[in-house]
Amino acid sequence: MSEKKSQKLMTKDEVEDLLTLDYNNVTSEALGEGKGLDAQDLAEMKNLLSAAYKDIECRYKKGLLPFMDLPKDPDILKAARKLADMGRKKFENVVVLGIGGSALGASAVFTALRPLNHNSLPSAKRGWPRLIVADNVDPDGFAAILDSVELKSTFFNVISKSGTTAETMSQFMIIYDQLQRSLGKSSLKEHLLVTTDPNNGVLRRIVETHDFLNLPVPTGVGGRFSVLTAVGIAPLAMVGVNVTDLLNGAAKGQEDAHKPVAANKAYIFAGLNYLLATLKKRSSLVMMPYADSLARVADWFGQLWNESLGKATHLDGSPNPNTQTAIKALGVTDQHSQLQMYMDGSDEKTICFLGVDSFKQQAPIPQIFKDYEELSYLGGHTLAELINFERQGTARALSENGRPNLTLTLPRVTAQSIGYLIQTLEVAAVVSGSLYNIDPLDQPGVELGKKFTYGLLGRTGFEDFKERYKSVVSKKKYIVKSNPTPKG
Amino acid sequence: MSEKKSQKLMTKDEVEDLLTLDYNNVTSEALGEGKGLDAQDLAEMKNLLSAAYKDIECRYKKGLLPFMDLPKDPDILKAARKLADMGRKKFENVVVLGIGGSALGASAVFTALRPLNHNSLPSAKRGWPRLIVADNVDPDGFAAILDSVELKSTFFNVISKSGTTAETMSQFMIIYDQLQRSLGKSSLKEHLLVTTDPNNGVLRRIVETHDFLNLPVPTGVGGRFSVLTAVGIAPLAMVGVNVTDLLNGAAKGQEDAHKPVAANKAYIFAGLNYLLATLKKRSSLVMMPYADSLARVADWFGQLWNESLGKATHLDGSPNPNTQTAIKALGVTDQHSQLQMYMDGSDEKTICFLGVDSFKQQAPIPQIFKDYEELSYLGGHTLAELINFERQGTARALSENGRPNLTLTLPRVTAQSIGYLIQTLEVAAVVSGSLYNIDPLDQPGVELGKKFTYGLLGRTGFEDFKERYKSVVSKKKYIVKSNPTPKG
Repeated sequence: MSEKKSQKLMTKDEVEDLLTLDYNNVTSEALGEGKGLDAQDLAEMKNLLSAAYKDIECRYKKGLLPFMDLPKDPDILKAARKLADMGRKKFENVVVLGIGGSALGASAVFTALRPLNHNSLPSAKRGWPRLIVADNVDPDGFAAILDSVELKSTFFNVISKSGTTAETMSQFMIIYDQLQRSLGKSSLKEHLLVTTDPNNGVLRRIVETHDFLNLPVPTGVGGRFSVLTAVGIAPLAMVGVNVTDLLNGAAKGQEDAHKPVAANKAYIFAGLNYLLATLKKRSSLVMMPYADSLARVADWFGQLWNESLGKATHLDGSPNPNTQTAIKALGVTDQHSQLQMYMDGSDEKTICFLGVDSFKQQAPIPQIFKDYEELSYLGGHTLAELINFERQGTARALSENGRPNLTLTLPRVTAQSIGYLIQTLEVAAVVSGSLYNIDPLDQPGVELGKKFTYGLLGRTGFEDFKERYKSVVSKKKYIVKSNPTPKG
Repeated sequence: MSEKKSQKLMTKDEVEDLLTLDYNNVTSEALGEGKGLDAQDLAEMKNLLSAAYKDIECRYKKGLLPFMDLPKDPDILKAARKLADMGRKKFENVVVLGIGGSALGASAVFTALRPLNHNSLPSAKRGWPRLIVADNVDPDGFAAILDSVELKSTFFNVISKSGTTAETMSQFMIIYDQLQRSLGKSSLKEHLLVTTDPNNGVLRRIVETHDFLNLPVPTGVGGRFSVLTAVGIAPLAMVGVNVTDLLNGAAKGQEDAHKPVAANKAYIFAGLNYLLATLKKRSSLVMMPYADSLARVADWFGQLWNESLGKATHLDGSPNPNTQTAIKALGVTDQHSQLQMYMDGSDEKTICFLGVDSFKQQAPIPQIFKDYEELSYLGGHTLAELINFERQGTARALSENGRPNLTLTLPRVTAQSIGYLIQTLEVAAVVSGSLYNIDPLDQPGVELGKKFTYGLLGRTGFEDFKERYKSVVSKKKYIVKSNPTPKG
């Protein structure tokens, strides 16, 4: 009775897997001949994964995959302890100025591990600062953040590896100016942590000139693999996340990811999705947690997967036609929004459910409205049962409709299981890179848009891009305006 | 100098379009021969749209598209005024118990039109209740909501057209029980509004038995077309949204949507996406607002598009292979997360930018760090410029890479422009239905999952589904567990 077990809290003596991967529903046994992966596909997968394993282990040993060693970095915990202490004693708010890889990891882990109403709790009940991640340059959005905090009780963590991220540096310039004006130059420093490259870049030079508190982003670790560096650990420690357990969980995930492929979740997850993308035309992978706490994990995964796998060419320069776009969703909410498309719409998706066996609360549904047949069946159950039954019912409905889906399950959402999940999926992204024969660590496609933006902003050296931008004139016949109305 | 104009606030005498659609970047002139729509495609589109226009207008006149008349419903404003007055005077929080179409519209409009920090402002500064939309049955998430509000200053709006939505009714049962226990049966009523079918369903029967305050969901208006009924208008009015302007804007949108197709944004938006999906294999449509205030509009659109278009068959029963999945994104944030995939990944997307010409704030970037070449270009600009230049730069980069994209622009985010946008996109969904020859108003694909859930919950009449669920045994060989660790 899986549904019974799923609701039961384990006793201290029991042991639990930190993550389970169930892929019954991508097999042809569940989906029907031709729709799912058959025995031959899975045998072939084993060969592919063995080759990828050799490749990855070799690159790891050469020091080319330093993110794999992050969970065992001893320095980060020392820094985290100091910051946690400072956060707790001195600040009401920690504001992260960062975007993409400098924002998503902290957001995801914070949402997973702090109370879901952490930021709206009164200070005494909260016990730790709020966390606000300023990951956009919307002027109204940024103003709303500043309107919500008092500078004197707010700590800012500027995060940019290169130091040149236009969004983050613009925010930093605004904040630096405001702190200086309202608190003075000497106090400013007590409100600022700069996380950037240990040696290079403009932000490193600024740090040294001004002697700002700072932490390094380890060399060779890109944004989307950086949540377990100072990038994520520092702000998370300051708002009360148990980063020791987080790193311990990640270390276990990495330990398992070095094991032979036959029982290696990172490899099997990558391998299944690779086969589904290449053999079964699954060009989309929907990551659909069934837990509010994991909603932002889907965002974090979206960056990890899409930046790692969205590559135009193989390493030999030949076209790479079969990438897989990660799409975020949230159960059960999106059953009432996206599921119709997943069930009956264009048939190019794999759905990955991300479930939780045991929630912290049960939320019993009272046995009222017993006289109404349409409602009486609900009383006596709990929301914890309902959300998991809905996940299971949806998975089955998709399978019966021939739509592949797989399920990752955490026993409970803890710092350990989240660390484990993060590290497993990061390894899976790199394994996917090996399977596709692409570079999973770069992101060349984002540069052109940046150059046009620099051109439009008038940055020296990008005049050509301004000209190039202006050289194409939008045709009025392709612009539809209508019904202008007097304002006021 | 479009970028200059885009930053300028208009004077009172000027007039503005409430919405502009620029589709230069889906044409072969911008994308290259074969990549975009050419003159012949666009001529053919005009014919298709003329046929769809006849179809839609005919159905409208038959009363089959009642959502088109919603903006002119006189009753709703009377109810809204009363509720607004009550909200302002008596409550700190309005909690919507609803999911899907009963939640997304209010969320989207609230985020667009109230200050982005509305819910975290102190009561006096806020002036209106907070809005909390409980659109999931996560037990921890629901507990966090209840932990954040005091029942005696909280108003609950239960929204379910059928009255049988398991998620909403479970929430309602919990809240009903708690209100009754803490405030007593007579006070309970003052904290409750039930929005449901005017005549049918269990919730209507409960309303009548208990004499609860209630509002109708008009007959023939489905969830994803219901934001301008009591479903959206009631909670929005209670938290300070100018619903009169919202409905006026929607009325203008509808007026324009009845105009000939040549200058009809709803039709052209639908037509372009239909051609891109069917002729150019654009199976995904990314809705990417460049404004924090519009982030939730992308969620609302996701439901509208995916439930309306995700249909397995044409009306004649033949397979419908070319649906288009809406994906939500947020600029500029997701440039650092999704853009790599949009630029270089699998080439099956159209990107729809949703831009704003003038923000409320400018957020000037101070002219500091002038000695650092990498930063000096930023000082003197504003975040308002930056976000729009990034949108424009990204659009151009995609075009140069042969990736189709179009841009919807609001002059400013106001109740009028949001109303206009909503109505235009709703009409576009129905026009798309006509082009695809599918039913855009139903959602048959979500039923099977519900039946399995009912079965698992033990609901009478669904025993077969429980049996059917249990009849398929998951094979252990397709479940990967590893490294169990002692807990504690």
